[in-house]
Amino acid sequence: MKFLRLASLDQVYSEYVQILKPISETLEVPTLESLGFVCAENVFASQDLPGFDKSLVDGYAVRSKDTIGASPNLPVMLRLALEVKIGEEPIGSINENEAAWVATGAMLPSGADAVVMVEHTQRFNEYVEVMKPVASGENVLRKNEDVKRGQAAVTRGERINPGHLQLLLQLGVERLRVFRRLRVGVISTGDEIVEPFVKEKSLVQVRDSNSYGLVAWLKSLGFEANRVGLCRDDEGEMFRTLKSWFNEYDVLVVSGGSSIGARDFTEAAIDRLGKPGVLFHGILIQPGKPTILAIVDDKPIVGLPGNPVSFTISTKFVLLPIMRRLEGEKDFLFKSSGMVKLTRNVSSRQGREQFIRVKLFEKQGQVWAEPLESETAQVSNLTRADGVIRVPSNVEGLSSGELAEFYPLWFGW
Amino acid sequence: MKFLRLASLDQVYSEYVQILKPISETLEVPTLESLGFVCAENVFASQDLPGFDKSLVDGYAVRSKDTIGASPNLPVMLRLALEVKIGEEPIGSINENEAAWVATGAMLPSGADAVVMVEHTQRFNEYVEVMKPVASGENVLRKNEDVKRGQAAVTRGERINPGHLQLLLQLGVERLRVFRRLRVGVISTGDEIVEPFVKEKSLVQVRDSNSYGLVAWLKSLGFEANRVGLCRDDEGEMFRTLKSWFNEYDVLVVSGGSSIGARDFTEAAIDRLGKPGVLFHGILIQPGKPTILAIVDDKPIVGLPGNPVSFTISTKFVLLPIMRRLEGEKDFLFKSSGMVKLTRNVSSRQGREQFIRVKLFEKQGQVWAEPLESETAQVSNLTRADGVIRVPSNVEGLSSGELAEFYPLWFGW
Repeated sequence: MKFLRLASLDQVYSEYVQILKPISETLEVPTLESLGFVCAENVFASQDLPGFDKSLVDGYAVRSKDTIGASPNLPVMLRLALEVKIGEEPIGSINENEAAWVATGAMLPSGADAVVMVEHTQRFNEYVEVMKPVASGENVLRKNEDVKRGQAAVTRGERINPGHLQLLLQLGVERLRVFRRLRVGVISTGDEIVEPFVKEKSLVQVRDSNSYGLVAWLKSLGFEANRVGLCRDDEGEMFRTLKSWFNEYDVLVVSGGSSIGARDFTEAAIDRLGKPGVLFHGILIQPGKPTILAIVDDKPIVGLPGNPVSFTISTKFVLLPIMRRLEGEKDFLFKSSGMVKLTRNVSSRQGREQFIRVKLFEKQGQVWAEPLESETAQVSNLTRADGVIRVPSNVEGLSSGELAEFYPLWFGW
Repeated sequence: MKFLRLASLDQVYSEYVQILKPISETLEVPTLESLGFVCAENVFASQDLPGFDKSLVDGYAVRSKDTIGASPNLPVMLRLALEVKIGEEPIGSINENEAAWVATGAMLPSGADAVVMVEHTQRFNEYVEVMKPVASGENVLRKNEDVKRGQAAVTRGERINPGHLQLLLQLGVERLRVFRRLRVGVISTGDEIVEPFVKEKSLVQVRDSNSYGLVAWLKSLGFEANRVGLCRDDEGEMFRTLKSWFNEYDVLVVSGGSSIGARDFTEAAIDRLGKPGVLFHGILIQPGKPTILAIVDDKPIVGLPGNPVSFTISTKFVLLPIMRRLEGEKDFLFKSSGMVKLTRNVSSRQGREQFIRVKLFEKQGQVWAEPLESETAQVSNLTRADGVIRVPSNVEGLSSGELAEFYPLWFGW
């Protein structure tokens, strides 16, 4: 482990987040309640999906070779041999120049290898005129084309989303082994900080929004989070607080304290707690630079900047990846959700990755981003931003009309 | 109200979703538990944010005009008049050629209008050498620059995200009036459908993944959702089921039944229930076409296609906007989260908007989308997709390397 002091975000990911040891405790939950958990097992399909050749449309199951050359002017005439209802197995099969009515979702009778949509047919009593040829397999989902019996349907390390849930239910998987939820303890710090709802406060006191806001945010993402205390800017108090909560949580977060003095005592308290202690005291991102990353006895301790905007960016791009990694998620980094065109130039400081809050809008089929005022201390901007663009550290700025990588800040709304 | 039968997605939004009447019931919740609710009031700031001119860095508060011309070779020498700690009001002010030490977050003493970062200074006992000029306001967040007392900080119709929460806490807002959560009842339908965990089933029976999957998904988004029943393909049974749950829920969803026959009886049952009944029986999207939209006594009833992929697309782009609208959300439509470059050509059917599932990856600072096999009946694809690209209805297809609008399918992970 290298004892770097100031690191790029990529270094943080590869040299800190990557080496963290995921929790090993798992539990079994009803699949119906598994959404948002990280899967702790490979789930192998106990059946084929679909279990039979299934029609994707309402129409006539046919032997595709019987339809060769069919057209509205020269339709092919087939005999209606049977009708297959959804939920029933076909009684009988079809032979040369025969067809079977199949509803969407119904099973193809043996002999048939394709389905002609009802729109391309005309029915005359026991006969069907087919006006369009079909290729073998057309409008059919073949047996096990979706999932093959024995195949891994969901694998260890995937966070269960509604798509996984659908698949697990289709396979009849009733219970699922998942990693338990991560437990996070949040400690607030700062001589200026007061509880958010105090009635009387002095002009320079600041209501604590970070620690409570973080706890609510983490809970909404499914984590177990508690705000465990408010510390004065005092090394001894911080040390005692960290120590008393150390065994209760998987991650400890110290929120606040971006001034040199406040950071110094936080770092000293962490280093007193155990080895290796503080590994990075600053990340080359803007905002979010005064982020402290430590490990004590294999447990991460994260110091987040006090400024609410820096706090939010650090949470999104540093703390959440740490937590996703610890919960056993295979792909623990956030991906960009696409590129956006800038409505105006943005300048950036070389040597730092910059995250600029933007508001998105669509115009003529293109997605544009309006950079919000870049003053990082403005909390009100957070309520207006859809997310942030990421300006690489080797770039001096981006021009109006250029494409930038976008990351949503919150959830999918 | 127009009685259209088949509509574009835009028509659905403007002629159906837009005219739905949001619920009027509100409740008061602790702000700390307001995340995800839609705000039902305009919250006016009871105080300025910040409440004082605040330093954004560690350094020296100065009169900016005293620093004119300062450089490393010709530094300006200022007398250190006082020191301001965070959380304390300055005792004293500064005069010409004086400076005050301020920590990040500390209040500027009167007389000062800017802060020189500590990195650009050198201290000699009671004197400070300033090696860089600062402009008025530099490194300072001025009183009420973030939020002005009396200004609307959060407004009616905004869904509370962690940014709003931060702001509300900073303002000391303890309780918030929000719209109550929407209640959704989900009815499953189909002769082939069996409960997901039955031990014995015939080859052609299908485990019900849609209705249970939807309920879990909606709950994870904060809605109240219940799966209220499983109906055979029978108009009478469907009518009785709809009727018995009609008063319990704000929206009723009928899941499944994409074959002509199944849709016919669902529509007939809805029309029997009341006026105006079914307004659209099909949307010009692919997948998701067999979506039924009805209104009975001002209450929306939505029929979602049985195919799990169509089901998911219809939920995302039709059902969720309806629910967001009903919960009072001002911006109830999903925005694209950016554009992505296609790794290969995709073809599309003119006259239908197409949603193609893709997997995203980054290469050289660009976001690429790999289209997954387009077979809409494959559930397993849902687990691999990050989201969908939207191909407009007037386009025949998109070419490899072209930009397409991307929409995440699930939440922000």
